[in-house]
Amino acid sequence: MELVHEPGAFRAACDAARKAGRRVGLVPTMGALHAGHLALVDAAAEAGADFRVVTIFVNPLQFGEGEDLDRYPRTLEADLEACRTRGVDLVFAPAPGAMYPPGFQTHVQVGELTERLEGEHRPGHFQGVTTVVTKLFLLTGPSVAVFGRKDYQQWRIVERMARDLDIPVEVLGHPIVREADGLALSSRNRYLSEDERERALGLARGLHAAAQAWAAGTREAETLVEVARGPIEERVDRIDYVAVVDPETLLPGAGVLQRGLVVVAAHVGATRLIDNHELGVDTPPPVEL
Amino acid sequence: MELVHEPGAFRAACDAARKAGRRVGLVPTMGALHAGHLALVDAAAEAGADFRVVTIFVNPLQFGEGEDLDRYPRTLEADLEACRTRGVDLVFAPAPGAMYPPGFQTHVQVGELTERLEGEHRPGHFQGVTTVVTKLFLLTGPSVAVFGRKDYQQWRIVERMARDLDIPVEVLGHPIVREADGLALSSRNRYLSEDERERALGLARGLHAAAQAWAAGTREAETLVEVARGPIEERVDRIDYVAVVDPETLLPGAGVLQRGLVVVAAHVGATRLIDNHELGVDTPPPVEL
Repeated sequence: MELVHEPGAFRAACDAARKAGRRVGLVPTMGALHAGHLALVDAAAEAGADFRVVTIFVNPLQFGEGEDLDRYPRTLEADLEACRTRGVDLVFAPAPGAMYPPGFQTHVQVGELTERLEGEHRPGHFQGVTTVVTKLFLLTGPSVAVFGRKDYQQWRIVERMARDLDIPVEVLGHPIVREADGLALSSRNRYLSEDERERALGLARGLHAAAQAWAAGTREAETLVEVARGPIEERVDRIDYVAVVDPETLLPGAGVLQRGLVVVAAHVGATRLIDNHELGVDTPPPVEL
Repeated sequence: MELVHEPGAFRAACDAARKAGRRVGLVPTMGALHAGHLALVDAAAEAGADFRVVTIFVNPLQFGEGEDLDRYPRTLEADLEACRTRGVDLVFAPAPGAMYPPGFQTHVQVGELTERLEGEHRPGHFQGVTTVVTKLFLLTGPSVAVFGRKDYQQWRIVERMARDLDIPVEVLGHPIVREADGLALSSRNRYLSEDERERALGLARGLHAAAQAWAAGTREAETLVEVARGPIEERVDRIDYVAVVDPETLLPGAGVLQRGLVVVAAHVGATRLIDNHELGVDTPPPVEL
């Protein structure tokens, strides 16, 4: 496994792999890797990538003021070991100044998909994401890139961005990986105290309740939201949103649904968590507690 | 020479050329080609491109409300003939719906370089330019792309954008091509009546006056602006701006200059014209009338 820090060397390594006939798969991360990230590496392989690239970059552009940029976990040595074990071919871990040198002033902005949910609660966040992901796509030249569906809105936005800008990459969204008790894996889970960890299960419980209601035949958007909200508000400190939206447009569902995505963002102590569950598809519901 | 209208076929043709070892040179245009555009094709060849691509697309995104999108000249047959004669290999002439299909919602925005001069007078213009040029770069995969320096600010912005987004293309700015009497070539010159054509020479005369003053030793920004402004305001109907700016940052020059770019935008009848001249470099001054 090769590790590079400079964009020029990274591009050269990816170019060389492509020229050697390798199919490049990209997994962009902010490090602090967990089993969810590593599942993305496997998914890249399953999608036919025989040259697996992981980028590790805590992207300052996608953090707002007062967010957790400074305390975001940095665990490079452990991340590299995990990548090595998982068969990753190349890791790119640039410094912020290498990605955004003096004079940098270009941003990529996706429109209405970014306006609601996370976009509403984290102004500028998605512009930071699409800007860095565009750069990573153009440095890497991947055939396939894999994102986790825990950041469901991010996945849809990146998919839209690649299509709109004619970036020739297949953007895959990999199903959420959960702990045995239902908690969605997240690098931010390590912020949680034991009590907070317990209360954080409210998110998965709310999603599970909605999935059960759906399985029992409930199709009214408003009812599903109320069902999901119950277990969440019992446990968390503050809810940013609980909603049922269309899985493609992310617009709020109303009335009787054919399909839906339940999304939630909530604060437990000082930690903000998000989770979601797609209704009307084969994804197994978050595990009952 | 091949002509394609669909982005997919265009990408395939460029990919094939690259795979065959050709070095791709791109000249993005809005058509209504004149000798200035054709000089860009030659410049691409001089820069080593042995596969010359011209795109012809009147990009609706870069026109503001009340601007000349509808009446902008469309002369595809003559353009194709000119390209054929000049040795162009591939022309891409997409319909707006092929570049911006339903659901399109992604934009590329460059920061401070876009805020002044044209950016101030044409809100949204440069976002439209950088968005379409990003798409064209990513469809084409050129080694080199050539822009005319009549749109000097555009050239600097595209150069910045390519660097910031890690698009591996050399962005060249080709010197302005002028009529014998000094008028900078522009597709919009064909809007001008005989009287307006005569008055439009005010722009080149103003630039020439500044170049003469520079040659005579004048280095004060404010004086150079006043010298340039004289011949312009004598002839045009309305001035949007006359300024001396730094050629790289495009920030206003002040005090004693080492170098400078005189830029002008003015209206003659219903037509808005721009022109510029770089001081302190070898570019010959606009011809004296």
